Amino acid sequence: MSDTGSNTMWGGRFAAGPDAIMEAINASIGFDKRLARQDIEGSRAHAAMLAATGILRDSDAEAIREGLLTVLSEIEAGTFAFSTALEDIHMNVEARLKDLLGEPAGRLHTARSRNDQVATDFRLWVRDQIDAAIAGLEALQRALLTQAEAGADWVMPGFTHLQTAQPVTWGHHMMAYVEMFGRDASRFRDARARMNECPLGAAALAGTSFPIDRHMTAEALGFEAPCANSLDAVSDRDFALEFLSSATICAMHLSRFSEELVIWSSAQFRFVALSDRFSTGSSIMPQKKNPDAAELIRAKIGRILGANVGLLTVMKGLPLAYSKDMQEDKEQVFDAADSLMLALAAMEGMVRDMSANRPALETAAASGFSTATDLADWLVRELDMPFREAHHVTGALVKLAEDKGCDLPDLTLADMQGVNSGITEGVFDVLGVHNSIASRTSYGGTAPDQVRLQIARWKERLA
Amino acid sequence: MSDTGSNTMWGGRFAAGPDAIMEAINASIGFDKRLARQDIEGSRAHAAMLAATGILRDSDAEAIREGLLTVLSEIEAGTFAFSTALEDIHMNVEARLKDLLGEPAGRLHTARSRNDQVATDFRLWVRDQIDAAIAGLEALQRALLTQAEAGADWVMPGFTHLQTAQPVTWGHHMMAYVEMFGRDASRFRDARARMNECPLGAAALAGTSFPIDRHMTAEALGFEAPCANSLDAVSDRDFALEFLSSATICAMHLSRFSEELVIWSSAQFRFVALSDRFSTGSSIMPQKKNPDAAELIRAKIGRILGANVGLLTVMKGLPLAYSKDMQEDKEQVFDAADSLMLALAAMEGMVRDMSANRPALETAAASGFSTATDLADWLVRELDMPFREAHHVTGALVKLAEDKGCDLPDLTLADMQGVNSGITEGVFDVLGVHNSIASRTSYGGTAPDQVRLQIARWKERLA
Amino acid sequence: MSDTGSNTMWGGRFAAGPDAIMEAINASIGFDKRLARQDIEGSRAHAAMLAATGILRDSDAEAIREGLLTVLSEIEAGTFAFSTALEDIHMNVEARLKDLLGEPAGRLHTARSRNDQVATDFRLWVRDQIDAAIAGLEALQRALLTQAEAGADWVMPGFTHLQTAQPVTWGHHMMAYVEMFGRDASRFRDARARMNECPLGAAALAGTSFPIDRHMTAEALGFEAPCANSLDAVSDRDFALEFLSSATICAMHLSRFSEELVIWSSAQFRFVALSDRFSTGSSIMPQKKNPDAAELIRAKIGRILGANVGLLTVMKGLPLAYSKDMQEDKEQVFDAADSLMLALAAMEGMVRDMSANRPALETAAASGFSTATDLADWLVRELDMPFREAHHVTGALVKLAEDKGCDLPDLTLADMQGVNSGITEGVFDVLGVHNSIASRTSYGGTAPDQVRLQIARWKERLA
Amino acid sequence: MSDTGSNTMWGGRFAAGPDAIMEAINASIGFDKRLARQDIEGSRAHAAMLAATGILRDSDAEAIREGLLTVLSEIEAGTFAFSTALEDIHMNVEARLKDLLGEPAGRLHTARSRNDQVATDFRLWVRDQIDAAIAGLEALQRALLTQAEAGADWVMPGFTHLQTAQPVTWGHHMMAYVEMFGRDASRFRDARARMNECPLGAAALAGTSFPIDRHMTAEALGFEAPCANSLDAVSDRDFALEFLSSATICAMHLSRFSEELVIWSSAQFRFVALSDRFSTGSSIMPQKKNPDAAELIRAKIGRILGANVGLLTVMKGLPLAYSKDMQEDKEQVFDAADSLMLALAAMEGMVRDMSANRPALETAAASGFSTATDLADWLVRELDMPFREAHHVTGALVKLAEDKGCDLPDLTLADMQGVNSGITEGVFDVLGVHNSIASRTSYGGTAPDQVRLQIARWKERLA
Repeated sequence: MSDTGSNTMWGGRFAAGPDAIMEAINASIGFDKRLARQDIEGSRAHAAMLAATGILRDSDAEAIREGLLTVLSEIEAGTFAFSTALEDIHMNVEARLKDLLGEPAGRLHTARSRNDQVATDFRLWVRDQIDAAIAGLEALQRALLTQAEAGADWVMPGFTHLQTAQPVTWGHHMMAYVEMFGRDASRFRDARARMNECPLGAAALAGTSFPIDRHMTAEALGFEAPCANSLDAVSDRDFALEFLSSATICAMHLSRFSEELVIWSSAQFRFVALSDRFSTGSSIMPQKKNPDAAELIRAKIGRILGANVGLLTVMKGLPLAYSKDMQEDKEQVFDAADSLMLALAAMEGMVRDMSANRPALETAAASGFSTATDLADWLVRELDMPFREAHHVTGALVKLAEDKGCDLPDLTLADMQGVNSGITEGVFDVLGVHNSIASRTSYGGTAPDQVRLQIARWKERLA
Repeated sequence: MSDTGSNTMWGGRFAAGPDAIMEAINASIGFDKRLARQDIEGSRAHAAMLAATGILRDSDAEAIREGLLTVLSEIEAGTFAFSTALEDIHMNVEARLKDLLGEPAGRLHTARSRNDQVATDFRLWVRDQIDAAIAGLEALQRALLTQAEAGADWVMPGFTHLQTAQPVTWGHHMMAYVEMFGRDASRFRDARARMNECPLGAAALAGTSFPIDRHMTAEALGFEAPCANSLDAVSDRDFALEFLSSATICAMHLSRFSEELVIWSSAQFRFVALSDRFSTGSSIMPQKKNPDAAELIRAKIGRILGANVGLLTVMKGLPLAYSKDMQEDKEQVFDAADSLMLALAAMEGMVRDMSANRPALETAAASGFSTATDLADWLVRELDMPFREAHHVTGALVKLAEDKGCDLPDLTLADMQGVNSGITEGVFDVLGVHNSIASRTSYGGTAPDQVRLQIARWKERLA
Repeated sequence: MSDTGSNTMWGGRFAAGPDAIMEAINASIGFDKRLARQDIEGSRAHAAMLAATGILRDSDAEAIREGLLTVLSEIEAGTFAFSTALEDIHMNVEARLKDLLGEPAGRLHTARSRNDQVATDFRLWVRDQIDAAIAGLEALQRALLTQAEAGADWVMPGFTHLQTAQPVTWGHHMMAYVEMFGRDASRFRDARARMNECPLGAAALAGTSFPIDRHMTAEALGFEAPCANSLDAVSDRDFALEFLSSATICAMHLSRFSEELVIWSSAQFRFVALSDRFSTGSSIMPQKKNPDAAELIRAKIGRILGANVGLLTVMKGLPLAYSKDMQEDKEQVFDAADSLMLALAAMEGMVRDMSANRPALETAAASGFSTATDLADWLVRELDMPFREAHHVTGALVKLAEDKGCDLPDLTLADMQGVNSGITEGVFDVLGVHNSIASRTSYGGTAPDQVRLQIARWKERLA
Repeated sequence: MSDTGSNTMWGGRFAAGPDAIMEAINASIGFDKRLARQDIEGSRAHAAMLAATGILRDSDAEAIREGLLTVLSEIEAGTFAFSTALEDIHMNVEARLKDLLGEPAGRLHTARSRNDQVATDFRLWVRDQIDAAIAGLEALQRALLTQAEAGADWVMPGFTHLQTAQPVTWGHHMMAYVEMFGRDASRFRDARARMNECPLGAAALAGTSFPIDRHMTAEALGFEAPCANSLDAVSDRDFALEFLSSATICAMHLSRFSEELVIWSSAQFRFVALSDRFSTGSSIMPQKKNPDAAELIRAKIGRILGANVGLLTVMKGLPLAYSKDMQEDKEQVFDAADSLMLALAAMEGMVRDMSANRPALETAAASGFSTATDLADWLVRELDMPFREAHHVTGALVKLAEDKGCDLPDLTLADMQGVNSGITEGVFDVLGVHNSIASRTSYGGTAPDQVRLQIARWKERLA
C-alpha cells in the first residue's frame, strides 16, 4: 500500500537512512518516463547525424536506431522494466539499449550530454502539448460557434456587476469566448515558434569538439534551428514557463466561463441546462443537477497557476548553467498540461451538450428597464440633446414607468411627452429588447448581423 | 504505457466522447485513496457513536467496525481492487463493506454525508502530516545542535551582501537555523491546535436530526471538540491552507540554508564538505562533487508555494457550502507534504554528514579587516569618541594597514597613535577574529559563551 | 507631472545616467517613512537603555530622547523635509537630530546598526497592523452577530454547487463567517505572539561588545523577549510573511462572502439589499444597484496574495545575514495591510447596512424538494429502514410530488402510503422548511436553538 | 502626515463611518491619474471620429479637442486639481473640460462609456510600457555585446551545480544572456501585436446604435484594428496579464544574472569588480563593496511575479462583462512596469560599468581538471574508443595527475601511455583551457570564433 501508507512511509523515511532518502529525492524516473518517446526520437536523430558526419559508423548508427525502436515498442507495450537505480529515462533507455546491442550502444552518447538531451526531450514534449492545446482550443471554439450560430439573435441580459445592464444576444456572448480562446491559441502559437530551437549538440554546456551538424538534428526533430548559444541552450526553461503562462491565462478564461455556467445553472437563473453527462444528480432530489464539470474546470486555474509560480520560483536566482534545481521543472508542467487538456476537453463537451433556456434569457433581458440606455441614445441622436440632459430625461421616464408598474415600451407617447415634449413616435423603435439589440450595429456590437459577421470570420479562420 | 502515451491519450481524449472525459475529470479515487486509513478510522468512530446513541444496533455497529478493519487490511496488503467507477475512497470502502456484510453496511451512512466525511478524513491526514513535519523539524534541529556544539567557537565570516562583514562562529550560524526551524515547528503546532476540531456530524451542511453525539466522535478521533458550525465545517479548508502556508515559510528557510551549502561547496569557498551520500560525483572529474541534494531542497519551495497559491486560488470566491472545486484540495496538499517531508529528511541527513572546513572558514573570517567594527567600538567605549568620529579614525587605520599590506592587528601601537594619539595598548585586545567573537557577549551575540547558552536552551526544549 | 509622465520619465530614465538610476532603485525613504513613529519609538528606548547601562551619559540620553520627540512632532505636523539623498527613514531622523542637538546625536547609534534598527521598526509596524486586523475582524464579527441574532430562525436555502440542498437559517449562515473570521483573528494572535521578540541589540549581525541590556529595550517596546540569536534577528522576515499568510487566508474568506453578496444582490436572487452607501447606482436605471464594495473586497485577495508570493520569492535562497534584496519587504506588506484593513472596514459597514429579503429567502428555501433529506432521515429513524432503501423510497415520493405539481408537504398520507405502507402521520412533522430546520438540533446544526447557542458563545468571547 | 500616521488612520478608518470607507475603497483617481495622457489622447481621437461621422458638429469637436489639450497641459504642468470626489481620471478630465467649454463638453461622451474608455486608456499605457521594455532590453543587450566583444576569448569556468565543469569564454557567457533578453524582447513584441486592438466603441458592453467608425479611432490611436467583439473588448485584461507574464520571465532572467554578479563579487570569487556607482561601500571597511544594485534587481522578480499572481487571482471566475473587481488591474501593472524598467536600466548601467577580473577567471577555469571532458572526447575521436571506456581511461589519468599534484597538461606522454598505450602526442592539443575552448567549434559552442559569430548576428539584428 505505497500510497495510503504515507505516514508509515514518512515515519520510515526519517528512519530510512541517508541512502534511501537521497534516492527518493534524486531519482526522476518516476515522472520523466513520460519523456520516453521524445528521448528515443531525439536519440535516433542524434545517431543518424553522427553517422552522416562520419563520427559513427553507419552500421553502428543503424543498429542503435533499430534498437531504440525496440526499446520504444517495449515501453509502449508496457513490458519495459523501469529502474529507479538508473535514475532517469535517459539512463533507463541507454541501459536497455546496451542489453540489446552491447558495445555500440555506448557510442550513442558521443558529442552530447544529459544536459542537452533532457532539454531537447522536454522541449519536444512541451511542443506536443502546445499542439494539443491549440487543437483543444479550436475544438472548443467550434463548439461555441455552433452555439453562437444557433442563437445569433436570442436575447439575453448583458451584465455588469452581475446586474442586468443592456440586452445582448446569446451568440454575442458565445463569441466573446471565441475571441478569448482565439487569443489563447495565438499565444500558444507564438510560444511554439519562439521555443522551436534545438538544444541538441550544446553538450554539457560548452558545445563539443566533434564535427557535429546541429542543423541536421534540428531539422530531423522539426525544429526551426539549433539554439544559438550552448550555455543558454542547457540553462533555458523559458519554453516551459511560456507554456505555463499561456496555460494560466487560458485557464483564467475557462474559469470565467465556468463561473457563468454555475450561476446560470442555479434555480434562480435557469439560463442554461447542462447535460446529464457533465452534471451529477441526487438520488433523492431529482430536480437537482450539480454542475460538477463546470466547477472542476473553474478550479483548474489553481493548479496551473500554482505550477507557473512554482517553476518561476525554482528558476529565480539560479546561476548558469545547469543546476539540479531544474529537475523540478517537469512534474509541474506535466500536471499543468494534463489539467489544461482535460479542462479544454470537458468544456468543449459541456458546451456542445448545453441548451440555452431562451424564455428565461429573454425575460431576464427585458427586466430592469434594460433599454434605458437606448432611450437616452435616441434622445441624443434624434433631439440633439447633450448626453447629460438625455440621461436626466431618461431617468424621469424610468421613474414614471416604475411608478406605473410597467416597462418603458408600455408607456404611452403622451406619458413621454409629459416629461419631454420633443419626444416622437419614433422612440418606440428603440425600446424593447429586440429593437435594442437590432440597433447596436457598430462594429463588434451585439446586433445579430454583426454577430453573424463575427461568426463568419471565425468559421473561415478555423476552416 | 499509460504515462508515456500522453499525446496519444490526449488525441484520444478529445475524441473520447463526453463520458470518458467526465470520468477523468470527476473521479478522485486516483489520489484520494491516500485517505483510506483516515476514512476507515472515521467510519469506525462514527459507527461506535451511532451504537452508543442507539441509532444503530450494537451488533450492526460491531459488524461494521470489524468489516472496516478487514477492508483496511486488504488495502494495506495491496489486495484491494480500487474502482474508478466508484469515484472516491468513501464509495470504494463502502461498496467493499457491503460485499462483506450485506445490508447492515448501508446503515453506516446514517447521520452523515460525504461532505463531512471527506472533511474529517482530510483533516486527519493533514494532522498526521503536521506531526510528521514537527518530528522532521526537531530531527533537523538536533542535527544542527550537534554541529553547533562541535563548533561553538569555530570562527567563520559573517556575511552581509555575501561580503565579509564581521567574524561569527560556526555554532552561531547553525543556531540561527535552529531558531528558524523552531519557529516553523511552533507555527505547525499552532496550526494543529486551531484545526483540531471535528467536522463529523455536520452532515451535508445543516447538521442532522438524528440524536448523534458529536463530542464522542470528536474525542475518539483525537479532536479537541466538534466544529461549532455545520456550514463552516464542510466549507472550510483553512486547515489545509494554514498547513501550506507554514510549509512554504519552512521551505523558504530550507532554501536559504541550501543556497549557503551550494555556495559553501564551491571550489572558491570550500567552507564545507558534503558527504558522498548527498552529492553526486563525476566519473572523470573525481574532485567534482555536485551538491545535488542541497539544490533539490532549495527547489522544493517552488512546488510548495505553488500548491499554496493553487489552493488559495481555488478557494477564492467560492460560495458556501461545498462546491466541487474543493475536490482540487488534495493533490496539491499531498504533493506539498511529500515534498516538505522529503526535504526535511534530506536536509537532516546532509547536516549530520557535512564537515566544516575550519581553516578555510577562519582564513576567510580574518580577511577584509573584518574587525574594523571592533576597533571603532573600542574607540567609542574607551576613548568616549562619538560614533561618527570613531568611524573616521578607523577608516584611517584600515587605510594605513592596507597601504602597509597588513591586517589591523599587525599595526604597531605607534602606527595607531600616529592616527590618534589616545589609542592605548588595550586596543589589541579587540583586534583579531578570536578577540572579536569573544567580545560580542550581548544576549544572542556570537561570543562562544552566548552560543553555548543558546544551545543549552534548545537542548532542554528538545529533550 | 511626476506620475502621469511616466513614459517620458522612463525615456529619461534610460538616458538618466547611472547615478540617477542607482538613487531611484536604492533609496527607500519614499516608502519607509511610514516607519517614522516606530523608528523614533525604538531609538528612544535604545537611548534610555544606553543611559541605564552607563554607555551614554544621562544628559545626552535625555537630550536625544527629547530631540526625537521634536522630530516626531515635525513629521506628524507634516513640516519635516524628507531627503532622498539620506536614503532611508533612519538617516533622515538621525540627520535632523544632529541639526537639533549637535554632537550627542552621533552617540545614539552606539551598539546598534541599521540592520537591527530596521528589523525592529518593521516588527513594531507589523505588530500594530496585527492589532488593527484583530480589531477589524472583531468589529466585523459583531456586525455578523447582529445579523445572526435578528435572523436566527429566518429560513434560507443552504447551497451546495450553488444548487439548493437543504434549508438553513440566515443566522446559521452568518455564524459560519463568524467562525472563519474567528479563526483569522486567532491566526493573527498566534502570529503576534511568535513575532513578539526584539531584534534590537543584534547590531549588524554578531551582537555587540557594549554591555547593553537587550531585555530592557525589549520590554520598553512591548516585546516578550529579545531575539535569541543575533544573526537570525537581522535575517528574519518570518513575522512579515506570517502576517501576509494570515492576511491572505482572511482575504479568501472575504472573497467568499463578497461573492455571495454579489450573487445575492442579482435581480435573479434578490436575497439581500445592500445599502446605497456601499453600492453605486445608475443615473438612468434607478433599480440598478451595483455591489461595488463587495466586488472590490472580493478582489483584494489578489494583491494580498500577490504580496505574499512576492515576499516569499524575494526571500527564497537568500544567504544570511542581511542582503539588500530584503529592502523589498516593506512596500508589499504596506500595500497588503492597507488593502486588508480597508476590506475589513468596508465589509463591516456593508454587513451592518444590509437587509435580508426574508420572503425571497424563504421561497427559495422551500423550492426544489429541499426537505427530501429530512424525509429520508425520518424513514431511517422511524421505520428502521437502511439508508440506501430510504433514499429509494424518498426518490419515489419526490417523483410523485413532481408529477402532481406539488411539494412534499402537500402530498396526502394516502399518497405516501401508496409508495410505502409503513409511513405514518408523523412524517409531516419533518416536512416543510420550518420543521426541517427545527429538527437539525445536532451540535453546530442549523436549528435556531443551536444557532442561538453559537451566537451566545461568540458574544461572550467578544465581550 | 498621511503616510506615517497609518495606525491612527486605521483607527480612524474603522470609526470613520461608511462614507469615508466607501470613498477610500472605491475611488481610483489616486492611481489612475497616470492614465491622463492616454485618456486625453483617446478622447481626442473619439471626438474627431464623432465629427467625421456627423454625430458631432465640427465646431464642437474642435472645441473639445482644443480643450483636452488645455487639460493635458495643465496636468503636465502640475497645476491640475485632481478631485477624489470625481472618482477617476475620466471624470476629472471631463469635469475640467466642462469648466472650460460648458455644454459641448457633455457631448464628448456620446457613443462611448467608461468601460470602453478605461480599457482603451489602459491598453495604450501598457503598449507604451511594452515599447519601453523592448528599448530597455535592447540597451541591455548592447551593453552585454560590448562585454562579449571585449572578452570573446577570455577564459572562465563554466559551472554546473556551481562547480567548475568546463572552461568557457566570458563572451560566451555574456551572449547566453543576450539570447535570454532577446527572447524577452520577442515575447513583448508578440504581446504588443496581440493586444493592439482598440476597445473604443464597444460602449458599455453591447456596442452602440450611433453610426460610429471604429476603424477610424483605432487607426488614429495606432491600433491595428478595433476589437471584434464588444463584450470581450470591455471584459478583457489579457493584454495586462500577458505584459505581466512576459515581465516576470524577464525578471527571472535578471535575477539569475544578478545572482551571478553577487556571487562573482564575493571575496572568494572576485570574478568581477562592480563600479562604485552600483555598489555601496563601508566607511570603515574600504575594501568592502556591497553589490546593492545587483541584489535589488535580483529581488524585483518578487513584486513582478506578485503582481502577475495578483491580477490573475482577481480575474479568476469573474463573469462577463465588467465587474468592479477589475479596477484592481492598474496598480499591480503600474508597480510591475516601474520595477521592470528600473531593473533593466540599473542592470544595463551595471553591465556597462563592470570589469571582468581576467586572471581570476582564468585561474578558476584551469582548476579542477576542467579539461577532462576534452581528454575523453579526444580518446573517442582519435582512438575510436567507446564513450564509456574513454571515461574510464580519463578517470585514471585524472587520478594520476591528482596523485602527482599536477594538472592534466602537466602529465608526460609516458605517464599517459602508462594508462593507455594508444595515446599520442596529439592529446596535448586539447588539454589546457585555451585549447579546450578553441576546440569547441560546434554551432553555438564556446570557441571564440563561434562566439564572434553570435556577436555579429546580434549586432546586425540590433543595428
